[in-house]
Amino acid sequence: MTNPQIPKTAPAVFFEKANGPITFVVDHPVTQPEDLKPGEVLVRIEATGVCHTDLHSWKGDWPLESKKPLVGGHEGAGRIVAIADGTMTQFKIGDAVGIKWLADSCLNCENCRIGAEATCALAKLHGYTVDGSFQRYAVSFAKHCTPIPDGLPLEVAAPILCAGVTVWKAIKEANCMPGAWCVVSGAGGGLGHLAVQYAAAIGLRVVGIDTGADKKKLLDQYGAEGFIDYMQFESDAMINEIKRVCSGEGPHAAIITSASGSAYNQALDYLRPHGALVAVGLPPDTYIKANVFSTVVKNLRIVGSYVGNRQDAIEALDFAARGKVKPQMVCEPLKNLESVYKRMEEGAIPGRIVLRC
Amino acid sequence: MTNPQIPKTAPAVFFEKANGPITFVVDHPVTQPEDLKPGEVLVRIEATGVCHTDLHSWKGDWPLESKKPLVGGHEGAGRIVAIADGTMTQFKIGDAVGIKWLADSCLNCENCRIGAEATCALAKLHGYTVDGSFQRYAVSFAKHCTPIPDGLPLEVAAPILCAGVTVWKAIKEANCMPGAWCVVSGAGGGLGHLAVQYAAAIGLRVVGIDTGADKKKLLDQYGAEGFIDYMQFESDAMINEIKRVCSGEGPHAAIITSASGSAYNQALDYLRPHGALVAVGLPPDTYIKANVFSTVVKNLRIVGSYVGNRQDAIEALDFAARGKVKPQMVCEPLKNLESVYKRMEEGAIPGRIVLRC
Amino acid sequence: MTNPQIPKTAPAVFFEKANGPITFVVDHPVTQPEDLKPGEVLVRIEATGVCHTDLHSWKGDWPLESKKPLVGGHEGAGRIVAIADGTMTQFKIGDAVGIKWLADSCLNCENCRIGAEATCALAKLHGYTVDGSFQRYAVSFAKHCTPIPDGLPLEVAAPILCAGVTVWKAIKEANCMPGAWCVVSGAGGGLGHLAVQYAAAIGLRVVGIDTGADKKKLLDQYGAEGFIDYMQFESDAMINEIKRVCSGEGPHAAIITSASGSAYNQALDYLRPHGALVAVGLPPDTYIKANVFSTVVKNLRIVGSYVGNRQDAIEALDFAARGKVKPQMVCEPLKNLESVYKRMEEGAIPGRIVLRC
Amino acid sequence: MTNPQIPKTAPAVFFEKANGPITFVVDHPVTQPEDLKPGEVLVRIEATGVCHTDLHSWKGDWPLESKKPLVGGHEGAGRIVAIADGTMTQFKIGDAVGIKWLADSCLNCENCRIGAEATCALAKLHGYTVDGSFQRYAVSFAKHCTPIPDGLPLEVAAPILCAGVTVWKAIKEANCMPGAWCVVSGAGGGLGHLAVQYAAAIGLRVVGIDTGADKKKLLDQYGAEGFIDYMQFESDAMINEIKRVCSGEGPHAAIITSASGSAYNQALDYLRPHGALVAVGLPPDTYIKANVFSTVVKNLRIVGSYVGNRQDAIEALDFAARGKVKPQMVCEPLKNLESVYKRMEEGAIPGRIVLRC
Repeated sequence: MTNPQIPKTAPAVFFEKANGPITFVVDHPVTQPEDLKPGEVLVRIEATGVCHTDLHSWKGDWPLESKKPLVGGHEGAGRIVAIADGTMTQFKIGDAVGIKWLADSCLNCENCRIGAEATCALAKLHGYTVDGSFQRYAVSFAKHCTPIPDGLPLEVAAPILCAGVTVWKAIKEANCMPGAWCVVSGAGGGLGHLAVQYAAAIGLRVVGIDTGADKKKLLDQYGAEGFIDYMQFESDAMINEIKRVCSGEGPHAAIITSASGSAYNQALDYLRPHGALVAVGLPPDTYIKANVFSTVVKNLRIVGSYVGNRQDAIEALDFAARGKVKPQMVCEPLKNLESVYKRMEEGAIPGRIVLRC
Repeated sequence: MTNPQIPKTAPAVFFEKANGPITFVVDHPVTQPEDLKPGEVLVRIEATGVCHTDLHSWKGDWPLESKKPLVGGHEGAGRIVAIADGTMTQFKIGDAVGIKWLADSCLNCENCRIGAEATCALAKLHGYTVDGSFQRYAVSFAKHCTPIPDGLPLEVAAPILCAGVTVWKAIKEANCMPGAWCVVSGAGGGLGHLAVQYAAAIGLRVVGIDTGADKKKLLDQYGAEGFIDYMQFESDAMINEIKRVCSGEGPHAAIITSASGSAYNQALDYLRPHGALVAVGLPPDTYIKANVFSTVVKNLRIVGSYVGNRQDAIEALDFAARGKVKPQMVCEPLKNLESVYKRMEEGAIPGRIVLRC
Repeated sequence: MTNPQIPKTAPAVFFEKANGPITFVVDHPVTQPEDLKPGEVLVRIEATGVCHTDLHSWKGDWPLESKKPLVGGHEGAGRIVAIADGTMTQFKIGDAVGIKWLADSCLNCENCRIGAEATCALAKLHGYTVDGSFQRYAVSFAKHCTPIPDGLPLEVAAPILCAGVTVWKAIKEANCMPGAWCVVSGAGGGLGHLAVQYAAAIGLRVVGIDTGADKKKLLDQYGAEGFIDYMQFESDAMINEIKRVCSGEGPHAAIITSASGSAYNQALDYLRPHGALVAVGLPPDTYIKANVFSTVVKNLRIVGSYVGNRQDAIEALDFAARGKVKPQMVCEPLKNLESVYKRMEEGAIPGRIVLRC
Repeated sequence: MTNPQIPKTAPAVFFEKANGPITFVVDHPVTQPEDLKPGEVLVRIEATGVCHTDLHSWKGDWPLESKKPLVGGHEGAGRIVAIADGTMTQFKIGDAVGIKWLADSCLNCENCRIGAEATCALAKLHGYTVDGSFQRYAVSFAKHCTPIPDGLPLEVAAPILCAGVTVWKAIKEANCMPGAWCVVSGAGGGLGHLAVQYAAAIGLRVVGIDTGADKKKLLDQYGAEGFIDYMQFESDAMINEIKRVCSGEGPHAAIITSASGSAYNQALDYLRPHGALVAVGLPPDTYIKANVFSTVVKNLRIVGSYVGNRQDAIEALDFAARGKVKPQMVCEPLKNLESVYKRMEEGAIPGRIVLRC
C-alpha cells in the first residue's frame, strides 16, 4: 500500500559523530516503499518535538552507544504514506501517527508481555539506535506507531509523544489514592508542566515546585493547588512548607522531573508514610541516597519510571485530544535544530520547541 | 469479664535505663482486671520470642525514645484472662491471642484507614512505648491482638508474630508476578528462613543468599530452588551467578533481611528490569545508593517494608497453622533473657529463641 | 468533653411502625452527654439529605428488620457537641462531621480489616438499626463519623454522605483504565448526576443515559461527553448507539444507578470485552440475567457495590470541597419530611432534598 | 530456517461439515516451509490434548462459525521445524512449543495492549478458525506459540495448554487474598482437578465440590482441605456445609468449572461478602441469575473468565514444570479421536485424553 507522491530525497538533519557537526540537508535519501521490510511503515513527518535526550544523543554523554550517522528525533507526528508488504496492521495510508522513543520491540518477551516494552532487550529507539523524526520521511514500525486522535493538531501531538507519555507513565507509577497530594518537582519545565496537567486531569491535588511568579501563574492555570518557590526557602524550611501545604502531612507522591540531585533527596524527607518518589529526571552521575532505617519505618517507595508503553502513549494523546493537557510550545523550522540545541544548553527554552518538517 | 485466678504479682523481666541492668523478678505487679481501661485486655503470656529489636530497645541505640522502666518483648502468645468493661470485641476469656510490636493505633487516621496501622501517629509499640511480653501477665489492646488459630502451639506462634509477620508483609510489598523469582538475602537467619518459606508457600521460586552447607540444606528443605553462598564469590561474580540462576535475567524481587549495606546495593545490580528491592533488615546509619540513571532505565522499585498490619498477622499465623511455615526455634525459660541478649550480640543464635513465661 | 448548651428536648421526626404515621415533634428527648457510652458522640445536626432508602425504611419493604420507633436519616451533617468519656478520637467539640448509613462497625473482623466495613456482621446503620439524622441532636460513633472539610457548607455535604459516597465507591469498583468510557444509567437522577461528576473528576469519559433536553443540558455542564435519550431508541438501536458513541466498541464500565431491571440487562449487551457492570440501583425483586457463554467469552465483570467505607466518604467529600462535584439540591425545613416522602413516591423530585434541622 | 526432513504428507484427522464424518488419514498435505507467511512457524506436533471445545467445534453447536474442512485441536505440544522468512522471533528450529486455542492476535488493539488477547477482534483460534493440533505438522504463529520449559514432557504439557491455562487464568481473575478460601465446583473433572492444584500452588485453601470417594481421595492428594460430595446434600444443606467448612463464612471465591447452571446459582448463595464467582464452565443456554439486592449488599463479583493470554500460558506451564501441577491423563494414538469424542459424549472420560501424533 503506497501513496504515489514519495520523493527520492527530502530534508533531514543528521550528524556523523558524537558532538560533531549537525548537518541540515534538503536532499537526504528517502527509503522507498519497495525497500520497507515487513512490519515497517514510511511516515511523512509534519512536526517533531526536540527533547533533552536528543541533545544527549548528539553529545554522546550517555552510557549507551548510538547509531552513526544518526538522524535524531523521537517526538514525530505525521501521516503514513507507505506500508510494507506482508504487514499485519490496522493502519492505512493517510493515518495520523506518532513515532516515539520506543520504535520497536519484540512483543513476545516477558517485558513485552507485561507491557514493559521499554525494557525489551531487543527494543529499537528512534533517534538513537534507528533514525528518528528530524527528517521529512521516516521509517517506523507498524506495531509501535501511535495512532493520533482526530482533531488533535500534529504539532500539539508531537511533544506529547515523549514528554507527555513519560510524565503520564510516571504518574501511573505513583499509584496514588484518588484525590491524593502529588508534588511535581520542576513543575514549570518541559516535563513538569505536563505532569501537573496530567495529575490534575485525574483529580489529584497538585503542588508544583519551581521558581518565579510566571511559573506560579502558569501552574495556577493548570489547576495546581499549591506552588513552592524553591528560591524562597532554606532546604529544611521548604520541606516543612511542602508538608504544611499537603494537609500537614506531606504529599503521597513526588514526581521528580528536574534533573537535580537535591530534588531527589528532599523528596524522601517531605513524603508522608507510604509515599512514592517517582524518578524521571536524569541528572548525570547522581544517586538517590535513601537511609535504610527511615525508608523502612516510613514504608517509602522509590520508583524509577522510564518511558511509557503503547497503551500509555494512546492514553497520553487522548487527554491532549480532549483538551485536558496542552503543551507549552513554539514552532520553528527543521533547519533550526542546531540553534535549538544551543539554546537548550543555555537553559534558554521556556517550553517545548516543535520543528516543522 | 474476668477469669478469677489472676495473681497480684508474677514473673517479669525489665530494665530501668538504656544499657542498664536487666532484672528478672518473680513478683512484678500484675494489672488487675478492674484497672483495665476500655479497649484493654489482660493476657496470660505463655511464650514470647526474642527479636533483635528487643536488643536495640534495651541498648537504646535507635533514634526513637522508649518507655522506662520497660518490660520488653513483642512476640507474645498467650490467652486472654480479662477484658475491660465497655470493650467492644469478638474475643472472650480463654481465647488464644498474640501481642505484637504494634500494640495499638487509632484505627481512624488515613494510615489506619488504608491498613497502614504501623505508621499511625498514635501507634503504641509493645516492648517499646508500652510494656510487652517479657512477663507472665501483659496488658494489650483488644482491637490489635491477633487471634491464634486452633491447633497452632503458642510457642510456635510466638516468633511468627514479629519475624513472620514482618517478612510476610515484605513479600506482599514485592508484589511479584505468580511464580516469579524471589531472592532472599540473609536467607538462613531469623527473618530470612521464614521469608523463604512464605515465598515458597505462595508459589514463588526462591533463591537464598547465605553461607555454609548447613544453611543450604535447611533452605533446600524449605523449598528454595537455588542457594548462593556469598563466601564463594567475588561481588561481580555473585551478581552474575544470581542472574544466571534466575532464568538468566535476575530475580523479580529481592527481600533484604540481612542488616548489611552491601546486600542492599548488590540487589540493585542483580534485579531484572521492573524488579523490586524490599528493605527489611536495618543496618545502622546505612544508605541505599541508587543511581538515578539505571534506576530509571531499568524501572526499578525500592520499597521500605515495616511491620505488617492486623490482617497480615492473621495471614502469617494462618500459613503456620497449616504447616506451610515452621520457625526454627529453641525454648528457654524467661529468666534467660539477659543471656539471650549476650548470645545475640555475639551472633551465636542459630534460629529464634522462644522464652516460656 | 461537652459543649454546655445542650437542651433536654429538640425537634425530631419519627415513626412507630412500618408505613405508620410520620410524626414531627419539637420536644424529642436529647441524649445527654453523661449518658453517652464510650465511643459515642452527640452531633448537633444542621442539615440532612433524604434518600430513597429512608422511604424504604419507613415503608418496611426491604428484607431487613429495622429499629422501632425509628428516627430515620443517614445523610446528616452537623457539629460535635459532646464526646463520651473514655473515647479515643481525633475529634473535638465543634468539629463538623457527617453521619452516614454506616453508623458503626467492629473495625476488627475480616470485612473491617480489608476496608469493607459495610459488610461487618456487627454494623449499625443510621436511620435503620439506630436512630439517624432526622432530628436536631443525634448520637453517633466517633470512629465512623466523617470529618467535613473546612469551607464545605454543611447542607452541601449532606447529600454527599450517602448519595455521593455510594456512587464514588461504585466508580472505584469499576476499576477503569485511565480515560476509559463510563456509562451512567439514570444519569440525571439523585445518584446518577453525582456519578457523572465523580467520573469526570478523575478523567473518565462519561456518557449519561436518561431522557429529556433538560437532563442533557445538565449533564453537559457536568462534563459528560455523550448523552443517550432512552426514549428515542428501541432497545437494540440504543445498544448500538451506546457502542458507537464509546469509540465504536462500547464502554469499559456501566454504573447502573437507575432502579430498572432492563437497565441492568442492556448493560451486558453494550459493554466492551472486559467491561464492568456496577450494580447500585435497587429495583425490588429483580435479577441480572447473565448468559454464561457470553459472559465468559467477553470476560465481563458484574460487581455489586454497596455503600463506601470511611476512606471513600472522606474522598467523596474532598471532591465536593474542591468544587469538582456539586449536588443538585433544594433545602426545606425538617418538618416537611412526610411531604418529601410523598413527592418521592410520585417521582416528583428533581434533585436531592436537604432538610434543615 | 528449516529442518530438512519435512515430509510432503503426514497423518491428520479432519471433518468437512458439522457433525459429519471424522476422517483419519495418513497422507494429509503438509505446508512446506517455503509456503509459510511471515510470522508463521511449522510445528511437528508430538502430543495433543482433547478438550470439550473440540467436541463442540465438531458438533457445531456453538454460536460461532468455524473453518471447514477443519483439523481440530488446540492443546498441541511439539517442536518447531520451520520458521517463515522475515519472522522476528526468539524461537529457533528444535524449540519445544505449545499451540493453544488462541493461535494469533493483532497484538496492537486495546485488548491486546492490556493483555486480553483472547478478545482481540482479529484473533485466530486453533482448531476452530484455523487448523489445529490433530495432525502431525501444524502451522502456527511465532508470537503466540508458548515456549515449553526444558524437562517438561510434551504429553504432560499438552493438557496444560488449554485446560491448565484456562483454570490458572480463572484463579487469577478471582484475585483472592493470600490464603483465602477457594471453592472449585467440578473439582474432579478435566478442568477442576487442575484448578485445585493451581489454587493450592499459590497457597489458597481449596475446597472441592464433586462426588464419590475416589474424587475425594484424588483431591486430598492435590492439597484440597475440604471436599463436598454434592450427592450427600440437599441444596440448602450443601450451602450451609460449604460455609461451615470455609471458616463459617463461606469462601472468598468459587471457580465454576462444571457446566451446570445450578452450580452457578448456588455459588451466589455460599460466597462470603466481597466474594467472587468466576465463570469457566459453559453449560449451553444457561444464565446466572443474580438478585440485584443481595448482589449489592453482599458486594459480590461475578467474573467471566475466558482463556488466558501468552503470559498466563507460560506461568501455567511453569507450575507444571516445577511439579506443582500434574494433569490426570491417558495417552492414545491420534487415530482414536472419533472414539474419544464418543466417550466424551457419554461422560466416560476420567481425566484428559492425550493423543500421540
